Amino acid sequence: MMDTPWDFGVHKELGEVESRIMESIESHEPLLHEIAAYVIESGGKRLRPTVAILAFKASGGKDPARVIDLAAAFELIHSATLIHDDINDGGESRRGRESAYRKYGIQNALVTGDFLYVKGFGIGGKFPPPIVDLTAEVCAALAEGEIGQKKHEGDVDLTREEYLDIIRRKTALPISASAQSGAMLAGAAQSVVLDMADYGVNLGLAFQIVDDVLDITGDPKVLGKPVGTDIREGNITLPAINALENGGAVNREELIRILKRRRKTEDHVRKAMQIIEKSGAVEKTLSDAKSFMKLAKDSLRDIPHSNPYRAEMERLADFIVKRNR
Amino acid sequence: MMDTPWDFGVHKELGEVESRIMESIESHEPLLHEIAAYVIESGGKRLRPTVAILAFKASGGKDPARVIDLAAAFELIHSATLIHDDINDGGESRRGRESAYRKYGIQNALVTGDFLYVKGFGIGGKFPPPIVDLTAEVCAALAEGEIGQKKHEGDVDLTREEYLDIIRRKTALPISASAQSGAMLAGAAQSVVLDMADYGVNLGLAFQIVDDVLDITGDPKVLGKPVGTDIREGNITLPAINALENGGAVNREELIRILKRRRKTEDHVRKAMQIIEKSGAVEKTLSDAKSFMKLAKDSLRDIPHSNPYRAEMERLADFIVKRNR
Repeated sequence: MMDTPWDFGVHKELGEVESRIMESIESHEPLLHEIAAYVIESGGKRLRPTVAILAFKASGGKDPARVIDLAAAFELIHSATLIHDDINDGGESRRGRESAYRKYGIQNALVTGDFLYVKGFGIGGKFPPPIVDLTAEVCAALAEGEIGQKKHEGDVDLTREEYLDIIRRKTALPISASAQSGAMLAGAAQSVVLDMADYGVNLGLAFQIVDDVLDITGDPKVLGKPVGTDIREGNITLPAINALENGGAVNREELIRILKRRRKTEDHVRKAMQIIEKSGAVEKTLSDAKSFMKLAKDSLRDIPHSNPYRAEMERLADFIVKRNR
Repeated sequence: MMDTPWDFGVHKELGEVESRIMESIESHEPLLHEIAAYVIESGGKRLRPTVAILAFKASGGKDPARVIDLAAAFELIHSATLIHDDINDGGESRRGRESAYRKYGIQNALVTGDFLYVKGFGIGGKFPPPIVDLTAEVCAALAEGEIGQKKHEGDVDLTREEYLDIIRRKTALPISASAQSGAMLAGAAQSVVLDMADYGVNLGLAFQIVDDVLDITGDPKVLGKPVGTDIREGNITLPAINALENGGAVNREELIRILKRRRKTEDHVRKAMQIIEKSGAVEKTLSDAKSFMKLAKDSLRDIPHSNPYRAEMERLADFIVKRNR
């Protein structure tokens, strides 16, 4: 049922996370369970659980029972936000399948998102206050990131710093919280907890930047979702920012005109993607992603090489920028 | 700012709940704060906080600091569900003002709902595991109630028992959880905790039944929202169930025809309301509400009369069925 494209030495634990999630979405309303299972079973990368468990193990954690619970909570919350995101963005497909709201209707999907939120918080709420605080903070930041992104719809003056702030809140902080709380549950020293938080935030930034590149260069069949979504929706992402900085003058004006349009045809979207690709912005953006990937690996410097999970975390960081889905 | 139509001896504590809520919805995204404040400041009855604090005091609780926190969490979660409900039901106004999604758009409203959820759970997650469990359970039940209600849209064969099960999950259990956890925080004996849970569930059933009556007989100006919503949306509620049981044969068929229609004109809605009113179903339904109100009061029997909050809880139960908004 789980379709994870990777294995970073925590396959067994991820299987247990999966069981924990499936057990938590039982419901005597068959439709609610069906929609929740539809979303959960569609796979997904399980990046947050992977990071939480790796950080726990790399920080010297032994019995993973608690971190498995927390990882399940993070993934449930993440799934909730994906359902709500798709409603908000009009996302038609996700992970190669029709998005939940398209298949089951907005009302049912919205409620199922709430249900998954609640189930995640029900599990997460059993952890010590610092972990509850951290989880609630990053979830609130995520909402702020969503609003921030929408505020800047079609804003071709969005700076690199503003973009990074949005993706930090939308993607990097939840991943950082996964790493950080994994270390906390392992009873790691404060310095290690902070290193893990750094790893997570930089891995998350790299991950989202690559996602934004794949939205331009990816193969929809491999990705399991259409490309060009950010352009279509008016989200200005790093490839566009880099193209606007470096693109040739004529093309630059045309790209701006398209990005600013409220309604875009598929021709507009394709044209904008071409301009971005031809400008060299894709290579520049991937190199930006690699810088964050290197920062992520650097934050592991105090983890002893004898701990095999350090190497797995490095492999994960490498994989994040090399992936094509 | 708070427009509470009632005072049941916990006015001071409700003021502190209000501060706690306002403090928790601070955000550096001005729009997110604005929408959250718009919903929170529109008033509302603060029924869940009132019940939590009353139950705490009636159970002998002294320092209300913790129950004030929990009451704020319950109200935040409740506000989140109201925003999402309005999106789902197309509710145009709420508490005399335009609903949040109408004023700010579905996307912003959906995210603000998530934000309030998270803020509520962030506070609620700091409580002992039994309270976290209880909160998560009733929130999940609420989602199940929503799905259950939608499943029975236009279902004129909905039984009284099925209706009660839906409103138990949608309204009564969250109120019961407020009462129950108030008693738990007071350190009350298990028997008192269960009595408070009973009070809450019966008060909640009475409250929702009266709400469903007011959707037929209420004055939109006093209610702050349109009437006829349940008929318009295809929600079969107790007044309709009672009318179908007791209404004259000719009218009964017409009522069924209207309730089953997927699209209804305003004439249809008005006609259905008239049939229900003329059938005597309103009186019958209010008498059903009173039975639950009496059960609520009965569950207070072991609270000593010397505790002044017992009388306040009885007054609240009386008020619930007498209110016109």
